Amino acid sequence: MAGKEKVTALNCGKDAELSPPNAAYFAKCMEKLGFVPNVLRAYAFDNAKLTAFIAMADDLMLADSGLSKLEREMIAVVVSSINHCHYCLTAHGAAVRQRSSDPELGELMVHNYRAADLSPKQKAMLDFAAKLTEAPAAIEEADREALRKAGFTDRDIFDIAAVAAFYNMSNRLASATDMRPNREYHYMVRERAAPKASKGKRG
Amino acid sequence: MAGKEKVTALNCGKDAELSPPNAAYFAKCMEKLGFVPNVLRAYAFDNAKLTAFIAMADDLMLADSGLSKLEREMIAVVVSSINHCHYCLTAHGAAVRQRSSDPELGELMVHNYRAADLSPKQKAMLDFAAKLTEAPAAIEEADREALRKAGFTDRDIFDIAAVAAFYNMSNRLASATDMRPNREYHYMVRERAAPKASKGKRG
Amino acid sequence: MAGKEKVTALNCGKDAELSPPNAAYFAKCMEKLGFVPNVLRAYAFDNAKLTAFIAMADDLMLADSGLSKLEREMIAVVVSSINHCHYCLTAHGAAVRQRSSDPELGELMVHNYRAADLSPKQKAMLDFAAKLTEAPAAIEEADREALRKAGFTDRDIFDIAAVAAFYNMSNRLASATDMRPNREYHYMVRERAAPKASKGKRG
Amino acid sequence: MAGKEKVTALNCGKDAELSPPNAAYFAKCMEKLGFVPNVLRAYAFDNAKLTAFIAMADDLMLADSGLSKLEREMIAVVVSSINHCHYCLTAHGAAVRQRSSDPELGELMVHNYRAADLSPKQKAMLDFAAKLTEAPAAIEEADREALRKAGFTDRDIFDIAAVAAFYNMSNRLASATDMRPNREYHYMVRERAAPKASKGKRG
Amino acid sequence: MAGKEKVTALNCGKDAELSPPNAAYFAKCMEKLGFVPNVLRAYAFDNAKLTAFIAMADDLMLADSGLSKLEREMIAVVVSSINHCHYCLTAHGAAVRQRSSDPELGELMVHNYRAADLSPKQKAMLDFAAKLTEAPAAIEEADREALRKAGFTDRDIFDIAAVAAFYNMSNRLASATDMRPNREYHYMVRERAAPKASKGKRG
Amino acid sequence: MAGKEKVTALNCGKDAELSPPNAAYFAKCMEKLGFVPNVLRAYAFDNAKLTAFIAMADDLMLADSGLSKLEREMIAVVVSSINHCHYCLTAHGAAVRQRSSDPELGELMVHNYRAADLSPKQKAMLDFAAKLTEAPAAIEEADREALRKAGFTDRDIFDIAAVAAFYNMSNRLASATDMRPNREYHYMVRERAAPKASKGKRG
Repeated sequence: MAGKEKVTALNCGKDAELSPPNAAYFAKCMEKLGFVPNVLRAYAFDNAKLTAFIAMADDLMLADSGLSKLEREMIAVVVSSINHCHYCLTAHGAAVRQRSSDPELGELMVHNYRAADLSPKQKAMLDFAAKLTEAPAAIEEADREALRKAGFTDRDIFDIAAVAAFYNMSNRLASATDMRPNREYHYMVRERAAPKASKGKRG
Repeated sequence: MAGKEKVTALNCGKDAELSPPNAAYFAKCMEKLGFVPNVLRAYAFDNAKLTAFIAMADDLMLADSGLSKLEREMIAVVVSSINHCHYCLTAHGAAVRQRSSDPELGELMVHNYRAADLSPKQKAMLDFAAKLTEAPAAIEEADREALRKAGFTDRDIFDIAAVAAFYNMSNRLASATDMRPNREYHYMVRERAAPKASKGKRG
Repeated sequence: MAGKEKVTALNCGKDAELSPPNAAYFAKCMEKLGFVPNVLRAYAFDNAKLTAFIAMADDLMLADSGLSKLEREMIAVVVSSINHCHYCLTAHGAAVRQRSSDPELGELMVHNYRAADLSPKQKAMLDFAAKLTEAPAAIEEADREALRKAGFTDRDIFDIAAVAAFYNMSNRLASATDMRPNREYHYMVRERAAPKASKGKRG
Repeated sequence: MAGKEKVTALNCGKDAELSPPNAAYFAKCMEKLGFVPNVLRAYAFDNAKLTAFIAMADDLMLADSGLSKLEREMIAVVVSSINHCHYCLTAHGAAVRQRSSDPELGELMVHNYRAADLSPKQKAMLDFAAKLTEAPAAIEEADREALRKAGFTDRDIFDIAAVAAFYNMSNRLASATDMRPNREYHYMVRERAAPKASKGKRG
Repeated sequence: MAGKEKVTALNCGKDAELSPPNAAYFAKCMEKLGFVPNVLRAYAFDNAKLTAFIAMADDLMLADSGLSKLEREMIAVVVSSINHCHYCLTAHGAAVRQRSSDPELGELMVHNYRAADLSPKQKAMLDFAAKLTEAPAAIEEADREALRKAGFTDRDIFDIAAVAAFYNMSNRLASATDMRPNREYHYMVRERAAPKASKGKRG
Repeated sequence: MAGKEKVTALNCGKDAELSPPNAAYFAKCMEKLGFVPNVLRAYAFDNAKLTAFIAMADDLMLADSGLSKLEREMIAVVVSSINHCHYCLTAHGAAVRQRSSDPELGELMVHNYRAADLSPKQKAMLDFAAKLTEAPAAIEEADREALRKAGFTDRDIFDIAAVAAFYNMSNRLASATDMRPNREYHYMVRERAAPKASKGKRG
């Protein structure tokens, strides 16, 4: 799949001949983004793995949910910040900037979500994701109840948990393989937003 | 899907009408195990989520790999032990007992793999999985190099990482939702093995 | 003392000639259990150490107390789970199964007591034992007060503390010496209990 | 000092009348940066505190040293990444981008320096700063010796220690007061560098 | 600067010719204490560093503040206890003994402030300092609010934060350089106080 | 047992009538120390508990061993320093001062043994005790092997482990009950030793 640079520190052999749906997916990435995200290229040595990853990631991040797509990206970045995952902070930091049109919100999620000026509901969501990342064994009914009190349905709680859990997986695959982000992400949505848009405290 | 008991602490609404492949999968579980694993029932409110989970889990645990199926279950249990995940320790503890025919090996993985009498290669594999679970940000080339020196190929390293990462996800979904294991797992392969089989130190 | 297998990784010389009370104690173990627990054999190179250990362990686990013998075993296993002590999880996991006639309760204590369906009083007891294990420096009057509010007397609190403290010792001696549990423990009380007995959530 | 926005969550009263050297310093900031860094404004209620902070910070970051100014900024960001300090990651992340002309290097320091393609000497420097941040009590002669073997003089080691220590202070003052970075930092040196410049692995 | 013994493990070259104010400061130390604190001698290879350190330390510990000088020393010792800094525990442990005329209070701060019989206000102050030391990223508005409720002004909170932050720096410089306390500190204010003076619980 | 002050925060009822051996033991304490250590008084509500504690403590700290009595006290203090146990740091800190005639060595063990100028053998001993305290699950054969290489026999390793384990128990009982040290300990062996005696680095 194009390019000379290594995508990870592992040599898993050459890429598989992509299945038609996977090839179509890569083509759509090229069309929309101008590149294929390296996480997909990292799986491209095996069609079954690539297919399963795309199916799960797209369901979690793009399917209908009580959580907005921006909120799901915020969870992704907060989990990745705790795990210090360079790949995911780069790719999903860019996604927060893009979905919020607020570059500063992206930085806040990368650095420390507690410094952001969030609604109590979003704060509760990210507190749960952070605890689930740092101390999964300590989650109790009180933690779920706090989400319900903040206004989330049980179905929403499932989605918060599933997204946070997924990036705990993805962060670890990226760190284990030294996965390298496409350089383009660094430069996306870096221009200052129009005055109204800031969601950070710093207004 | 059968039974009255709640599978998790969340009420995500009633189960979806299963897609034909998912229905067939559940039927196969009933046939082979006598029950449908609760992790699958936990996803059954949504066919897309269920499908993606099955595809990823089966690829990781059952597809061709340089790691044996037992080794992949050992990784699953070691990760779940660190994360103190009751669901996964119950289900995959049973799987280690079953695939090894060694109930004591199952207990060793649940308790502390460092107490088991493992080959240096398997020890290196589990050390990597443990570090990736506890301190993913600290993984460095030296950690991958230790696996290569122990005899693993880069492709094997990918699989070790992917399995360990997957259970870091699965543990967190289970803990976040208070997922409850099927009771049957507790009672599988608990009889003492024939004298030769022990892989633990205690022989 | 019987057998060829090493009980720990240390060679502390041959066993002492047991004092009459220690010899009688070993004989009673053989009669009741069919074996001498390896923790006792690990101390058998020195009668004074063995005597002191038996005196303290038996007082804590068997003497009159506001805590039931099962509750004391539950504390032992919860502490050992946090410390990942293979010896104690094996021996005292069996004891929980035996005293409760509930194999699943044993597994719950080994895996994560927070997944068990406990009374608020027992939950408070185990929360205290867990905090005392993980962060003894952070115990404050509020922690003792929580136990009093849950219904414990000061004398009960002493016993909770003493049992939890003792297994923090025992876990460390076992881990430091690679103490190996008698294989028999793995196979005790593994049969499914009669329907009524479950104390876990999974009913 | 200009502006309506609060610089921290604390109301420490109105700014002092700046001493002539402090006023001159603020004027120089306005001239060179177009703004006064909020950390200075946070101290502006008290001339003595402001003077002492400026003296120490400028000595550490700008005085002669065996470490380049970029290296000192790299240490600042690595420490701040571990401590998840939004203020310092924003301000010193911008400084790394500026001094290196490499926006990607800035992101690598913010995310996880272990993902960067550093010289062994710089890697050793940041490993020491990270350990000093996370586990100061565990520093031993072997850690200093590792720096000497990497090519640092004792005087350099003092500077590595002093810079890392200083940001462990500054991070805590910023977190304790909810110090808010000037928004301008987010937008500095975000343009893609000319092809040659990358210091990251991703080239 | 006098003496044969090494002050740190680093050889930073010979001491600078002290600037007149620094020389006067050293002379004042000799006069009042009978020795120059080794932390000052550790900076004496460079006048600018020494000047900046003295200015910041003296402002924090001696300038007007809503916190008493004893309270600031208590914070210094509590932070140093968490960081296990031998230099600062020795020097500032002596300072707590001296400013309180209560040797036992000094020991309590060195060992664990939670064992001391403090006012709720002082307890809140030290709880904040401890959290800021251990988990700076987790400080939130609720932590500042707890200090306000305990009776502190925002200006006091700044001072609590600044002192705690400063010793997080100083501890790390001392540990990084193996800074060695003047032996005199060990022997200062060790005599038992008159009956009334105890501030510890042990009365 | 003498005095008005509470020994712990728990009211376990009035002291038992001491058995003759326990009464004799208390009398011997009065004769030798001038007081009964509060840890003994804390157990005095129950003769069986008191007897068992004395038997175990005296065997560990006073019986024949390859470790000197001072070395055993050093382990006690290092473990208690990690666990921040005020009672044990006070009582056993005094014991190190007494057995070494070196007040500074006592402080070094209380603060951070890594700052002391120990022989490689004693350093290895304390490194093992520290790891066993902080991360018992991570002890491996390599840790025992390091002790053997440092010159310890397997029997010595048992004693290092047993003493470190015992203070992990004792620290937790003291913290759980808010055990308060006899004030006398603070003032024992505080005078400066004759010039030759220092075992610390600070000579």
